[in-house]
Amino acid sequence: MDGWEEVYMPNIKLVIEYDGTGYGGWQKQKNAVTVQETLEDALQRITGEKNTVIGAGRTDSGVHALGQVANFHTQSSIPPERFAYALNAVLPPDIRIKASEQVPEDFHARYSATGKKYRYSIHNHVHGTAIDRNTSYHVREKLSVKEMEEAASFLIGTHDFKSFCAAGSSVKTTVRTVQQAFFQQEGSRIDFYIEGNGFLYNMVRIIAGTLIEVGKGKRKPGEMSGIIEARDRRMAGPTAPAKALCLLEVMYENS
Amino acid sequence: MDGWEEVYMPNIKLVIEYDGTGYGGWQKQKNAVTVQETLEDALQRITGEKNTVIGAGRTDSGVHALGQVANFHTQSSIPPERFAYALNAVLPPDIRIKASEQVPEDFHARYSATGKKYRYSIHNHVHGTAIDRNTSYHVREKLSVKEMEEAASFLIGTHDFKSFCAAGSSVKTTVRTVQQAFFQQEGSRIDFYIEGNGFLYNMVRIIAGTLIEVGKGKRKPGEMSGIIEARDRRMAGPTAPAKALCLLEVMYENS
Repeated sequence: MDGWEEVYMPNIKLVIEYDGTGYGGWQKQKNAVTVQETLEDALQRITGEKNTVIGAGRTDSGVHALGQVANFHTQSSIPPERFAYALNAVLPPDIRIKASEQVPEDFHARYSATGKKYRYSIHNHVHGTAIDRNTSYHVREKLSVKEMEEAASFLIGTHDFKSFCAAGSSVKTTVRTVQQAFFQQEGSRIDFYIEGNGFLYNMVRIIAGTLIEVGKGKRKPGEMSGIIEARDRRMAGPTAPAKALCLLEVMYENS
Repeated sequence: MDGWEEVYMPNIKLVIEYDGTGYGGWQKQKNAVTVQETLEDALQRITGEKNTVIGAGRTDSGVHALGQVANFHTQSSIPPERFAYALNAVLPPDIRIKASEQVPEDFHARYSATGKKYRYSIHNHVHGTAIDRNTSYHVREKLSVKEMEEAASFLIGTHDFKSFCAAGSSVKTTVRTVQQAFFQQEGSRIDFYIEGNGFLYNMVRIIAGTLIEVGKGKRKPGEMSGIIEARDRRMAGPTAPAKALCLLEVMYENS
């Protein structure tokens, strides 16, 4: 590996869509096939290199992405924009590269990210859905979207979101800024959208679980401020199922 | 079977959603698991009867439904509205009953139908989609929705649609009335909606295949009238893939 540091390694950014149903989440691990591992294997097939692919967000098992972002360094002669085509030719159909481009050497998919957008999808009907069964959470009790919307408005702003952070996770600070949090309804489909500068472990799923309790009438919308102030995971609702969560977009300074 | 005709057999109507990916279409057949067969097996489990379930439309292998309609006669004491719950408890998750109700004795899911609505979904992007891979057709070439919309307008009205009927199918008449035919686009997703009093075998898929050729610039929108007038299957475009087709709704006189 002599002189390795001196070799110029173009930095490639990927935008990735995946159906997380068949994966043990994003991050490489021993006992499950993950998206990261599948991508690294595909890269090795087309470049011959053992690349590490850095993902913007470590999505849980079953979570989907329409706009996950990742980057890797390569010596391959494949033109940056062609990586999407070359990878799609060898990747399984439940992972698709939407775009590839060269980015500055210091671009880091996770550390350079300035924000993320997520969607949490609820199927609100007495009977379940067949077509969206792997991408939505079936809630039988009629939900009040108006009450959930009111509750969600308390999340907007800069707060300590410790109450919405899975126990046992170690982060320097649990303070995050939420820019947007709103609902959209079409028939029995209720989508919750949230945008923030960063999210704690399981944060969106715990928020969704709490808002659903509000929608069911188990909690009042105004209780949200107390839950936030408590900085106590036990005050918030349950962690809603992973399969209904989708990472929509990762934002960066210059994009 | 003495006196069989005298037994009063309530007629139950079902509204059914299914993900057709894992099925050999609606209709019972020897070499594939079908939706009809799966439903009849589920009914037998809950009623003990060998019921025949009559479907409104015989969807092809891979075609989906958000609003297929079916009916069956039963002596079961299960209240009509409870059939949906009872069936969902035993059906696989890719088939869901959305509603069940008792209907007049002469209601026949197929013969009583006065119209149907279908959607054909296109993913129009150089790269494929992971999440909608089983419910959309991936078209790489940039499509002109404006030209497709213009071409689709020629379909509206009462016409002989023989050019859009799969060869070898035997029907009394190939004349049908199309009430609506239009497109909706959101990002790379293009949905074609069509409503008519009835559809010939493969009609929506052949129409979709023809409109996509218009969208690619291979045909002019105005050619549609000539294709219709020709009454010749060879004049129309290819049959577009089944997986992108979804039966949205079946209409009846009093609903």
